[in-house]
Amino acid sequence: MVCPTSDLCVGGCNLHATEEGAINIGGLQHFAVDVFMKMGIPQTLDPNTKPLPKGGDQKIALIGGGPASISCACFLARLGYKNITVYEKEKYFGGLSSSEIPQYRLPYDVVQFEIDLVRNLGVKFVNGRKLSSQDLTVNGLLNDGHAAVFLGIGLPEPKSVPIFEGLNQEMGFYTSKDFLPLVSKGSKKGLCACKTSLPELHGNVIVLGAGDTAFDCATSALRCGARRVFVVFRKGFTNIRAVPEEVDLAKEEKCEFVPFMSPQEVIVKGGKITALKMCRTEQLDDGEWIEDHDQVMQLKANFIISAFGSGLYESDVKEAMSGVKLNRWGLPDVNEVTMQSVSNPAVFIGGDLAGVAETTVESVNDGKTAAWYMHCYLQGIPYDAPIELPKFHCPIDDVDLSVEVCGIKFENPFGLASAPPTTSTAMIRRAFEQGWGFAVTKTFGLDKDLVTNVSPRIVRGVTSGENYGPGQGSFLNIELISEKCAAYWCQSIAELKKDFPNKVVIASIMCSYNEEDWTQLARMAEATGADALELNLSCPHGMGESGMGLACGQNPVLVKGISQWVRKAIKIPFFIKLTPNITDIVSIAVAAYEGGASGVSAINTVSGLMTVKADATPWPAVGREKHTTYGGVSGNATRPIGLRAVSAIGNKLPGFPILGIGGIDSADSALQFIMCGAPVVQICSAVQNQDFTVVDDYITGLKALLYLRTKGLDNWMGQSPPSFKHQKGKPVQTLYDTDGKVLAHFGPYNQKREELLHEKRLKSDLLEDNTVQTYLTNGTTNGYSEVPRIQDVLGEALSRVGTYKHLDNTKQVVALIDDDMCINCGKCYMACADSGYQAIEFHEKTHLPRVTDDCTGCTLCLSVCPIIDCISMVPKIIPHVIKRGLHYQVHPVSPLDKVCQ
Amino acid sequence: MVCPTSDLCVGGCNLHATEEGAINIGGLQHFAVDVFMKMGIPQTLDPNTKPLPKGGDQKIALIGGGPASISCACFLARLGYKNITVYEKEKYFGGLSSSEIPQYRLPYDVVQFEIDLVRNLGVKFVNGRKLSSQDLTVNGLLNDGHAAVFLGIGLPEPKSVPIFEGLNQEMGFYTSKDFLPLVSKGSKKGLCACKTSLPELHGNVIVLGAGDTAFDCATSALRCGARRVFVVFRKGFTNIRAVPEEVDLAKEEKCEFVPFMSPQEVIVKGGKITALKMCRTEQLDDGEWIEDHDQVMQLKANFIISAFGSGLYESDVKEAMSGVKLNRWGLPDVNEVTMQSVSNPAVFIGGDLAGVAETTVESVNDGKTAAWYMHCYLQGIPYDAPIELPKFHCPIDDVDLSVEVCGIKFENPFGLASAPPTTSTAMIRRAFEQGWGFAVTKTFGLDKDLVTNVSPRIVRGVTSGENYGPGQGSFLNIELISEKCAAYWCQSIAELKKDFPNKVVIASIMCSYNEEDWTQLARMAEATGADALELNLSCPHGMGESGMGLACGQNPVLVKGISQWVRKAIKIPFFIKLTPNITDIVSIAVAAYEGGASGVSAINTVSGLMTVKADATPWPAVGREKHTTYGGVSGNATRPIGLRAVSAIGNKLPGFPILGIGGIDSADSALQFIMCGAPVVQICSAVQNQDFTVVDDYITGLKALLYLRTKGLDNWMGQSPPSFKHQKGKPVQTLYDTDGKVLAHFGPYNQKREELLHEKRLKSDLLEDNTVQTYLTNGTTNGYSEVPRIQDVLGEALSRVGTYKHLDNTKQVVALIDDDMCINCGKCYMACADSGYQAIEFHEKTHLPRVTDDCTGCTLCLSVCPIIDCISMVPKIIPHVIKRGLHYQVHPVSPLDKVCQ
Repeated sequence: MVCPTSDLCVGGCNLHATEEGAINIGGLQHFAVDVFMKMGIPQTLDPNTKPLPKGGDQKIALIGGGPASISCACFLARLGYKNITVYEKEKYFGGLSSSEIPQYRLPYDVVQFEIDLVRNLGVKFVNGRKLSSQDLTVNGLLNDGHAAVFLGIGLPEPKSVPIFEGLNQEMGFYTSKDFLPLVSKGSKKGLCACKTSLPELHGNVIVLGAGDTAFDCATSALRCGARRVFVVFRKGFTNIRAVPEEVDLAKEEKCEFVPFMSPQEVIVKGGKITALKMCRTEQLDDGEWIEDHDQVMQLKANFIISAFGSGLYESDVKEAMSGVKLNRWGLPDVNEVTMQSVSNPAVFIGGDLAGVAETTVESVNDGKTAAWYMHCYLQGIPYDAPIELPKFHCPIDDVDLSVEVCGIKFENPFGLASAPPTTSTAMIRRAFEQGWGFAVTKTFGLDKDLVTNVSPRIVRGVTSGENYGPGQGSFLNIELISEKCAAYWCQSIAELKKDFPNKVVIASIMCSYNEEDWTQLARMAEATGADALELNLSCPHGMGESGMGLACGQNPVLVKGISQWVRKAIKIPFFIKLTPNITDIVSIAVAAYEGGASGVSAINTVSGLMTVKADATPWPAVGREKHTTYGGVSGNATRPIGLRAVSAIGNKLPGFPILGIGGIDSADSALQFIMCGAPVVQICSAVQNQDFTVVDDYITGLKALLYLRTKGLDNWMGQSPPSFKHQKGKPVQTLYDTDGKVLAHFGPYNQKREELLHEKRLKSDLLEDNTVQTYLTNGTTNGYSEVPRIQDVLGEALSRVGTYKHLDNTKQVVALIDDDMCINCGKCYMACADSGYQAIEFHEKTHLPRVTDDCTGCTLCLSVCPIIDCISMVPKIIPHVIKRGLHYQVHPVSPLDKVCQ
Repeated sequence: MVCPTSDLCVGGCNLHATEEGAINIGGLQHFAVDVFMKMGIPQTLDPNTKPLPKGGDQKIALIGGGPASISCACFLARLGYKNITVYEKEKYFGGLSSSEIPQYRLPYDVVQFEIDLVRNLGVKFVNGRKLSSQDLTVNGLLNDGHAAVFLGIGLPEPKSVPIFEGLNQEMGFYTSKDFLPLVSKGSKKGLCACKTSLPELHGNVIVLGAGDTAFDCATSALRCGARRVFVVFRKGFTNIRAVPEEVDLAKEEKCEFVPFMSPQEVIVKGGKITALKMCRTEQLDDGEWIEDHDQVMQLKANFIISAFGSGLYESDVKEAMSGVKLNRWGLPDVNEVTMQSVSNPAVFIGGDLAGVAETTVESVNDGKTAAWYMHCYLQGIPYDAPIELPKFHCPIDDVDLSVEVCGIKFENPFGLASAPPTTSTAMIRRAFEQGWGFAVTKTFGLDKDLVTNVSPRIVRGVTSGENYGPGQGSFLNIELISEKCAAYWCQSIAELKKDFPNKVVIASIMCSYNEEDWTQLARMAEATGADALELNLSCPHGMGESGMGLACGQNPVLVKGISQWVRKAIKIPFFIKLTPNITDIVSIAVAAYEGGASGVSAINTVSGLMTVKADATPWPAVGREKHTTYGGVSGNATRPIGLRAVSAIGNKLPGFPILGIGGIDSADSALQFIMCGAPVVQICSAVQNQDFTVVDDYITGLKALLYLRTKGLDNWMGQSPPSFKHQKGKPVQTLYDTDGKVLAHFGPYNQKREELLHEKRLKSDLLEDNTVQTYLTNGTTNGYSEVPRIQDVLGEALSRVGTYKHLDNTKQVVALIDDDMCINCGKCYMACADSGYQAIEFHEKTHLPRVTDDCTGCTLCLSVCPIIDCISMVPKIIPHVIKRGLHYQVHPVSPLDKVCQ
């Protein structure tokens, strides 16, 4: 949250030049941590943690409770050390993160959460102890039986600047090292809540410096009562060091900037600061900066806050470090690779004190580095051994995703469909290495049926508009089955099974309607050691014309016949891959069942024609003639068809295994298929949109979804917490116009909002401002006391999917619009007026919509509202009166009033 | 392009608070004009222009060729005046737009284009004539037979500021009024191209002011050789008047800002400016700004450019306006409502000279206003008559979209499908008023079959991901047919036909399989005067369970039977609405044809299950039990299925009318259906996503698409010109790294790019920098010499859509990546490695991809590339060798190597 990502990862992001710009990596991490925090899941020791050669009972002390120590302690604990103590002189932990970074940039509960995660692993945290000749000393700790010591006390004192000598807070002078901790104590609930400590500023405040700290001081000063804040800095705008986000915030909050000025003298009258004298700075042609003492300017000031960095000057602290050699800057001399003291191998140093890190994230890295080399030091591991730092581990990681289908054990339910991602076994190998649970080979046939593809043949879907890039809502392909010969596949499958015995390999095969061919090919495939076969009776293009694929799969008689032949030919399970391009897919599944198939795979692609260009040429266009044929549509656009097929088969043939396919692109959509009756799922388009690594998200996500079933997380949608009232992620406030109505969010109303919010900010009680969000847990769980396995949730939704007639038309709902969340865009009004029941009024000026009694609960308004959770459907409490038109008297619905009377 | 939209329309946009932010209105208009310019279509007089009561031959003179005069002349010409002359003293037209706004903000060809559009209407433009006692005078013109005169000469002289007196360009002093025209003349091709006029700057340049003009001067100064540019202004950052876009550009180009400074004295040494003395300004607590003359600062400067506004001071000009009363500021005294001189009713004034407008867009509005009241003045129309200014008109507006189907004339092919947008006749009325050509009523049945809906029932599609807001890629609904009784519909249809005789009304009806019912209902519906009937044999949910809808439409025998009954019962045409939830939709169309139906409507919604939430409840969830049923998926996600159905029927039954349905959301997608054989199209989801007004876009768009068939626009995609090499709309330059390779676009490479581009900008020859894009026309037309009608393009794509076997697998293509456009994101590499043929290499450091000889032309890389036209498929020139695997020797494709050997 405080990492200068725009300089680091985001600054180097490859997607910089796309329309959407670089990936907001910091934002994504922030979001992930935020949601995880709300889930309330502890960190645990990975049961697979390597045992420590010399045990983990050594005493380790870490001094200073900031980012470097916390990070170091965390990694040591993950490595298996059990006797770790972090000492901190203040009443709170977190170091600069707590004491100096303002609440609105880094809320204290985030820091607390990080510390709690370390506490989860048994690390002890002790307050009120400091590095001092009177308290903790390096030698004292080592003599007291500590095997190693980490020093992460930061740089506690401000740099002394001659012109500020003799100035104090009474007079109106602060350094950032005084000012920011006071602000934190006065504004961070849980840290201290000494509300009285908040500096009371007024009038003009000058902040000196152009780093992040200066900007933190500037925006904090505004919140402490400053009327106007001037950020004064020595160089020009092009030299500002702070990250753009900070500068923009200061600008938004109306700070003023005074560049090219170097402070010379503080003017004090009657014991109070009244002004700052500065001289102009200038950059010479050779790049050097000079001060021109003849050009002097004065700026009125009631307060001055200097943000010029900090150092280590206290002799008491230096004495406590006795034995740790200091360098010429007065800081410990460390080996920058290992963070180990050059003079005392039992001492490691990190963070500001080590003099290497410049940002919080670098301090955290110091701690991590120190943890590894301290581990090497303690266990006698060579310092050049490969670094193996354990990752975060929690109960979600321990969730078991394995599932058994037809006696075959799948380690997880995610597999590659028989499609371009299984074009070659090199690709399947890479997929297995990435974590995929199974793979269905690209379909192969007998060599007499070998095919040759045309090109182009795999095109973007335009089903979600003319989008470019990955994230296509669909693809269309006219690719045939594998161009490779049967022998290639047979040998390759055998090799795959040998190299990946725990992975499931399913061989996909295809013949025309001919017992001899099917028998021969099925036996060849079984002989490879494949776990199962998939009979492709559904390829929608090309193959059908040759009497294969869909030509067989649309006829229950042929499906039953082929199933019987194959059942007779082989022992291993086999699945029939079904086409959705059919009136009644269930009848084909029944035929497969009756023919002895072990299960079905549903669905294959949907037959379609994707695009005709404005000059009447289709895409893909093949050859000089620019001809095309109907192709197979895959991806998200087909998911409703897939879910329909799977649930319909699931309801008709309970327990008959279904391998789910159709636009699965996430753990969430996989779970949908599982709940509709498919124990494992096959994926292609989502891989085409990205690569094999997506499986990592799917596995973690599905584990989380199952784990959360044991939690009582009210109103959560899967892994998503309920959305609080916000706009663009910022809490939205209910503000009223002079007429008492809710203030709208556009044009002049928005200006008024901004003015009111600015006033509010200036006046706000910082402590009240904190929007600490507590975890949304309650006593009840989602029906499970132990984490369910896939088998437990399999088909869970099926009982809710049925005929129209079983729906209750006496329980009507109506739309409810939240005025605060509403952005007054009018989309609900437009949709209701022209495509609904004309039951939303729209205020001419404020653009506030109002739902009338005519609402029939159609839900279209919610469906087009751009703001999540702004519109909800609530039970209708007035009688449901249907407008029948001319002859019928309007009458309330009764249970007798069914579809057909 | 130069409108401060962020202050105006964009600033007030209702969508301000959405994730995507306010609509970039300026950008959209810019884009539209830009593309239209490239189309090369003239402005024409609307054939429906009202005749002028007193004729249009009056002589009208407009003096000054800037935005106000051009606008005034344009509207006068559109009103029908034929004798209009614009006089301009310079050699070029456009006023400030040409002479002061820099080329990179407003290219000269844009101004030329605007003027050409006015010329198209017969307005004469005369150069080298000016308002002067020696040339054109107001009285002279009026005496010479001019009926009215418009004065739009702007404010030609800079405000005189005492401290700059005696300074000249030789010494290094420019006002913006001198500087910017010199830059324009030296940088705008076509304006003058006096390259030598470009001011040659060097060293430090100070620009004074904080308005748009100041920032134009600053960024232009950099391009004229300034080493460093300082923008000095009196107030703080929070008071900058220029639009944020301008300030950001200056920042990007590394201008420096010096706030709180008021210029006091220019230091000149040896006849050259060397520095500027300034004093500090300060805002008092009461808001007043004061200068503190004791606080003086000096800034080195080689050049000073003042941008402090302009005025009218020349006595010769004032003399030429004799008879036009001036106000106390020395400007003409105008009526601000009519822009008429208060002293001379034949004289109108606009733009800067009138003293009201502050921006170009306001000047344009002045001219428009003056045009209307001059018209009133000339024709004797009361000044309080309603204002009726003609809109832009061009040959595209005259394209005829009408089409005849089964003897019914459709004024355009766009109709509302039988769906929520036709829930009531009030809605159909509103749709007709908006321009829809036809409407199919929501389906009604006999009163014994009256239905009652459940709620919720219309939900967002998640087929394009978890998007919110309008622009849904699909919807799913479980809404039944109309809840209204047959009598309501019968009476309403009769009223609609009476009130909208030129609109087509099609009554949609439904019964169960029963001759008596169908006969009764069809006759009732025919008796209303409906133009045709649509038999709903395809409703996918609810009705089927009652033996209606899809229950009939999936069986050819029933379809043929019902068709025969209805054919016997009525005389008017009727269409069978087909379901896509079927193995062979063509067989149903054939049954309809054989049963005597006049045509078919294809397709109805696709049966699906949209969403199951993570807690196993579906959405929509009805009643306390949260049950659901399969619903109908509509919208873009179904378009490939719709296009497939329509083209398959079109190829099977040539000439049999098809009303096309399925995700039509634009003129482009409508044309796709037309080219696949549907003369008219029905729309629902796109209206749900917006409102009835979308039809305006569709009509204009389709007219344009047809019109463009007569143009030879090479490589255009419909209305889209070929994309030039750009990134985010800015031309991309080929830059090379020190190793001679193309420089990548991310991280350190991007920094290097920016440095090189900055250097380039500083050195660039401004004239060469112009990227004037000429119209991409050539001699050949797209096959039509006259604009085709819908009938002409109907079914045009059908011959290209056929079986797989007719595709030519000897004409293979491969991917070609444009290194310059490539943003090095690696998506093509990832897709090819894990879902393709592993035929793209990726450079470890520069992230430049390279297509290898293994490319099989599958096209997946192009399909996932985020940059339009970065990857293209080109004919393969090396032999196409297929990797068959183990046993097969790789061998080139021969024509014999077909799907099945």
